[in-house]
Order: sequence, then structure tokens, then C-alpha cells
Amino acid sequence: MSKAVELAQANQKDHLDELIEFLKIPSVSTQPQHDEDVKTAASWLADKMTKAGLENVHVVETAKHPLVYGDWLHAEGQPTVLVYGHYDVQPAEPFELWESPPFDPAIRDDFLYARGSSDDKGQAYIHVKAIEALLQANGRLPVNVKFIVEGEEESGGASLSAFIPQNKELLAADVALVSDTAMPKVGLPAVTYGLRGMCYILMDIKGPRRDLHSGSFGGAVNNPLNVLGHIIAKLKDENGHILIPGFYDKVRPLTDEERDLMAKFPFDEEAWKAEMGAPEAWGEPEFSIVERLGARPTLDVHGIIGGYTGPGGKTVLPSTVHTKISMRLVPDQDPKEIARLFTTYVNEITPPSVTVDIQVRGGAPATISDLNNPAMEAAVSALELTFGTTPVFMREGGSIPVVGEFQEVLGLETILMGFGLPSDQIHAPNERFYLPNYYQGIEASIRFFEAYAK
Amino acid sequence: MSKAVELAQANQKDHLDELIEFLKIPSVSTQPQHDEDVKTAASWLADKMTKAGLENVHVVETAKHPLVYGDWLHAEGQPTVLVYGHYDVQPAEPFELWESPPFDPAIRDDFLYARGSSDDKGQAYIHVKAIEALLQANGRLPVNVKFIVEGEEESGGASLSAFIPQNKELLAADVALVSDTAMPKVGLPAVTYGLRGMCYILMDIKGPRRDLHSGSFGGAVNNPLNVLGHIIAKLKDENGHILIPGFYDKVRPLTDEERDLMAKFPFDEEAWKAEMGAPEAWGEPEFSIVERLGARPTLDVHGIIGGYTGPGGKTVLPSTVHTKISMRLVPDQDPKEIARLFTTYVNEITPPSVTVDIQVRGGAPATISDLNNPAMEAAVSALELTFGTTPVFMREGGSIPVVGEFQEVLGLETILMGFGLPSDQIHAPNERFYLPNYYQGIEASIRFFEAYAK
Repeated sequence: MSKAVELAQANQKDHLDELIEFLKIPSVSTQPQHDEDVKTAASWLADKMTKAGLENVHVVETAKHPLVYGDWLHAEGQPTVLVYGHYDVQPAEPFELWESPPFDPAIRDDFLYARGSSDDKGQAYIHVKAIEALLQANGRLPVNVKFIVEGEEESGGASLSAFIPQNKELLAADVALVSDTAMPKVGLPAVTYGLRGMCYILMDIKGPRRDLHSGSFGGAVNNPLNVLGHIIAKLKDENGHILIPGFYDKVRPLTDEERDLMAKFPFDEEAWKAEMGAPEAWGEPEFSIVERLGARPTLDVHGIIGGYTGPGGKTVLPSTVHTKISMRLVPDQDPKEIARLFTTYVNEITPPSVTVDIQVRGGAPATISDLNNPAMEAAVSALELTFGTTPVFMREGGSIPVVGEFQEVLGLETILMGFGLPSDQIHAPNERFYLPNYYQGIEASIRFFEAYAK
Repeated sequence: MSKAVELAQANQKDHLDELIEFLKIPSVSTQPQHDEDVKTAASWLADKMTKAGLENVHVVETAKHPLVYGDWLHAEGQPTVLVYGHYDVQPAEPFELWESPPFDPAIRDDFLYARGSSDDKGQAYIHVKAIEALLQANGRLPVNVKFIVEGEEESGGASLSAFIPQNKELLAADVALVSDTAMPKVGLPAVTYGLRGMCYILMDIKGPRRDLHSGSFGGAVNNPLNVLGHIIAKLKDENGHILIPGFYDKVRPLTDEERDLMAKFPFDEEAWKAEMGAPEAWGEPEFSIVERLGARPTLDVHGIIGGYTGPGGKTVLPSTVHTKISMRLVPDQDPKEIARLFTTYVNEITPPSVTVDIQVRGGAPATISDLNNPAMEAAVSALELTFGTTPVFMREGGSIPVVGEFQEVLGLETILMGFGLPSDQIHAPNERFYLPNYYQGIEASIRFFEAYAK
């Protein structure tokens, strides 16, 4: 066992205490009343990064929330790893559903309960502690390392998106390392090699200029809520096939190797169904649930509001209905092209008795990593050594837009080595982090840096 | 000209002043802060009814807002007319859209602007003034008259609904007379001989137990908002045909005479379109707009709320969506049967991946009057004499549930002699009443009572 891993194991108590301190700062990036807390979290992290032995540590002011940068670049001839994470968290509301206060971390069984424990403070801090252990053990790192940690991941990430193209030199590296995903279950490590992309749409349908009385007008005026139903039905059929012409044209077919990997994936369908809580699973019948979740594009309506929604009944022919829709994308769908196809199609199927207004909000391409790159091999070996079992390769249904930006702007592949669990309840009340994963994550990170050295 | 009509013409100034007084009382029946005002309006009206010469006038306390009753029953051998109206009004919000305050009546051009001016204080008060003129002129009425005026029409009408079956004797009559509808345009009187009925449904669709992250679950969980789209599309096609099996089975076909009446109806399509304010009219292509509005059943979604509806985007797979739907019915559709057909069909087309909960709220059958009944003839003659032109027969798209109750419980046909205008903006800001219609309404009411006497 490497000296650094031994050191990390010896310091678990300190690692836990520090993470608890970090989690006590309510760095909710979307709520202006927490702006000062977000700043505090950035300084706290910068201080810990400095203490860990990183150099050039500084808090970068932005138009909104600061970034934290730090590096260690003395491993001559060795590759450079860009470590990314985020120190901001989701809002904790509704507070009353938390069993212990979201910003007063509590341990129950082996779980640490707090907002941000898994997403992403706990996972981001793993790498700070790994670097510290390596530097304490050896006085140096096996590879060069840069950290960029943002405070706006939960609120759009605009500041980092602006920072990347303006600081290509500063962020130049050979690979990016991100821990912001999950393992399929306790004891089974994973490398996520694919993320879905995203195209987000706001769609308003407008009929009458003002709400009308359905008695006096019903039957001779088209109703935007009825029209919306027809549009939704024409966007995706009842088996989950998206009906927008050209939508699937660029979808890269799954290779036999990939379908094989997915078939072997130790998916716990019962646990997943329990978590989901709908009467039954559903989706494209020709694909497995694992494939539907990780490797197939989707179209979902996220919100509708229109007409009278108060108590009881009111017979109004509503003027307008607001809808939010997103499409999760897979390689090689282009979010801009998908937005165009969506817009053209919806304009085509919208009857002339109403008008439709479509706004495209946010697009990110899907990303997929080369399974044979040396950093991937280092990750596999580090996880195998740490958990005692070969990691599985996963394609994850979510989107991490910064991974696409690293790819597009910096030309970097990203290693997604996640230590969360599907039951972590991120973005929900009672978010938690499995403490053995925190400690083993630190070990796996140490081993990754060791294994990645030439 | 009858002496009563002469007297009414001479007293127009008083009639206006009294109506203004009535309209100053903010008797909004749905807003608890106006409960006292509703009481005040009931007493005010009872007082005026007594002064007009009606007898047995009393305010009937109910579970909610009082009813006002009064009668004059000394016309031996003559038929009895039950006059109905309501003294409560819709809420006036949003106040800022009113050009003059809703409860401070203002006259501009020939219109009296105030909440309730047309719906229904102005129209209900017409008959009080007509009775007064007749009694002052002749010391007696040509027919027997009973008044029942309610204070809950705008909030469900439950108290009157309960009162009618318990007071059949008190309310027994030969015909009911209601002024709570509109004329097609200035100068053209109308008798409404048909009202659509109503079946109101609250429908919730539930998928996952809680909102899920669409990245982690999208593609393998059915989304209640997407499902709702398919259900709406299957309820009514894009040409306005309702697709519920059996829905049209009981619809009484329009007779050639009726289609003829409707074709001759002086419908001002341009004015109607301007009022409607949608890009174009719409509906069942095989029926005219007048037929679609008055004589065809409809299905409209009145409200949808589900998922994330705040600013910006959020990628949630919503647990539940709430929907409100009504069907306007025509003779001889039975609201209970229609509710059953709706429920059976929706349960059938709802996929097993979600659950649906349907609650039926309120049902009223359509009503249609016999055009050859003597009271109808009296109304036609009264309107013709007053306006100098033959009234048109209308079928009105709205529903007045009490008319169905008069029919069902008391066996009464109702004469709907309305003096509103389509541009009165009832239920909306700047409600108004065309003053010449107020004065001519009083004359028409006098002439109706005169003409109805044997």
C-alpha cells in the first residue's frame, strides 16, 4: 500500500471533521440571501487547498459567484490533470421534510446527512484530501494537477462557461477528472464514460387575447390547453419514440460492445423501481432500462401552467399556456440542430387558430469518453485496487455541461469517477453521502494520480 | 301605451339613482371579507321590493348567503310568474384594470360602469321597477308574481339549490322569468330558448411518488405531463369532435326549423372575433359558429398545473399534474351519464405506468324551452312592442343551472329575456350595462306581465 494511502486512512477523522465544517456553510447559489455564504465557502475551500499544499491558490471573482483555482506543476515530463468540482449546493427547501437540519450535518448509520454532502462538496473535497496525503507522504505529486472549483453549478454555470475560453492556457491539461456522479451500488465502483446532452425549451401557446367565458365562446375558439395536448402527443408517441422529423438522424448507433457492457451492468431493477415509485417502468420497448436511461435521447415536459388552477371549478377558455420541455441528447446529436428541428416541427403542427412562441434555453452536447485512453486505464486500476472489484462502465442519463465545454474548448476528455450512490437524494430533502465512499474515494483519487504517472 | 309604461318612462331618473345605490354595495359572494356587504345588499333589495308593493317580502337566512323572497298573489284566475335574479356579483379583481372604481358606478356615453351592472343587479332590478310601475298605475298586477333572488349565483348557488326542493309550494308557478342573458346587439331584442348544460371534471394524473431528476430517470419512467397530452388529444380531435365513445348518442339533432332560425340569426361575426381576440375562429367544420356556440356540446380544458412552473428551467419528472375539464352539454345529454362515459374512457386510455383520479364536480342538464308556450308568446310580443322589432330566438352557450332545477324540481319552463350586450364585460374589468336597455327592459317587463294575463 502506498504511503499516501496509509496516511489518508490514518486521517479519516480529520477528513470527516473538515467535510462537516464545509457542509455547514449554506452555499446555495440560486438564492441571493446566501450570496455571502457562497463567498465564505469559496474562501474556506481556497484556505484548505493552500493547506493541502496546492500552489497559486486564488479566488477568482466573476460576474456572479467566485471560482477557486489552485495547482501543483512540478512533475516534469508528467501529464497534467484538471480536477473539477463545485462548492455550491441546491436550495434545501422544503425544510420540514429534512430529518435533521440540512446545514447541520448529522451521521446516521454510515451516512452523512446534509445538503451538498454528495452533490458535490463531499465528492469535490475528496481530491483536495488526496493531494494533501500525496504531498505529505512524498513531498511531491506523481503528476501535475490543476483545480478549478465553481460556485454556480446549480444555477447555470455561466461564470465558468465564460472563464474557460478566456483562460485556455491556465486550464490546459491532458485530461479532466470529475467526481460528481454515482456508483450503481455500495461496493461496486464505476467509471461513467457517457453523459447525455440537453436542449431546453420554453414554449408558450396563445389563443384568445384574454381569458374568455367558455359558455359564450366554447366550441368556436381553439383552446391553447387542448392544442397543447395535441402538440405533446405529436412530439412523442406512447412508447417513448420521439416524432420530430430528423430527431434520430445523428444518433450514433450503440455498438455491440456497448450493448454488451450495458447488458452486463449490474442494474438493480427492484431498487431502481422502489426509488422511482411509479406503478411500472416504461419506455422504448426495443431498449433495456439501462439503455433507455443512459444511451437513448428523451423528450420530457417538465412543467405546464395555464388557465384556472385555483380551488374548485372555473369555466375559462384560457388565453395562454406556458410549458417547459427538455430533450436529453446522445452522441452525436447537436443541441442547436435539435432546437431547430423542434421549432420547425412545432410551428408546422400548430394550428393557425393559435400562436406559439418557442425559446431555446440552454443546450449541451452529449459526451462520451474513449475507454482506451491512459487516464481511463488509471481510473480503472485505482478503483479496482481500492474497492477490490473491477469497476463497471456506465453511461449516465444526466448532463454535466462543463464536461462538454472541456471537450469543445480545451480538447479534454473527462474521467467521471463518481462516489455517490443512487439513493443519495441529491436535489431532495435528506441528501446524504455514504462515508465509506468518502474515505475510499480519497484512496481511489490517490491511486489514480499514482497510476496515471508515466 | 299602457299607463304603467308611461309611469316607468317618467321615472327613469329615479330608476337610475336606485340602481347606482344598489351597485355601490360590493356584494361579492365568493370573498369572505364581503359577507356583510352581501347581507346589506339583501336587506337593501328586500326594502325596495316592499316599497315597490310586493308582499310577504322577507330575507331567508341560509347556510351561506340569504335569499330574498316576495310575492303579489291577488290576480285570481291568472297565471303565476316566478321571477329569478341574483344580487351577488363576481370579484372585481384586478382592480387596476378598471377605468373607474368597480363599486363607484360611473356613466360614460350611454353605459353605466360598475361590477354587477349587467350581471345581474341591473337586470334583476328591472323587474322590481316594472312591478312598482304596474302597481302604481293600476293598483294591482295583471298576473300573480313571486320573486326569488339569490346571493350565491357567482359562488355555486348551493343555498338556492337546497331551498327549491324544500319549498316547492312557496315557489309553485306557471313559468319562470329570468333576465341574466344578453341581446345580440343594440336594438335587437332576443329570447334565449336554450342553454347548454355542464359536466365539470377534476382530473389528476400521478406517475412517480415524488418528482424525479429527468437525467437519472428520463426515458424509463412515464411522465404524467406527457401522458396528459395524449389523453387530451384522445378526448377531442383537432376539428373539435369529441372522441369519447357514446358522447353524442343522446344529442337531439337540430331540426331544420332550428338550423333555419340559427342561419337567420343576426350574428355579427366581426364583432365576435374582435371580442374573442384569437387569430381565427375554429370548431366543428360542419356547423356554423352560431351552431357551435349554442347547439353543440364542447369539451374544454380550463386549467393545468404540474411540474416546475417557476422562472427558468428545471429538469424534473413531475409526480403529478392537476387538470380541470368541462363539457358543455346540449339536449338530451345527461350530465351523470356523460361523467360516466368520460371516466370509463379516460380509465381505458390511461397507460398502466401512471394512475388517474377523476372527480366529477357539478353537472347540470341543458335546457330548451317550448317556443309555442303562452309565456313565450307574451315575451315575444312585449319585446316587439318595446324595441319595435321582432326578437330573435337564441340558444346560449352558457349554463344557468337554476333553470335546470326549475325544470326538474318545479316543472317550470323558463323565459330568458335578457337585456345585456355581448360587450358588457361581465366577470371582467369595466363591466357595464347599456342604460337604454335598462329602461327598455323595465318597459318590456311591464308589457310581458300585461301580455301574459289571460
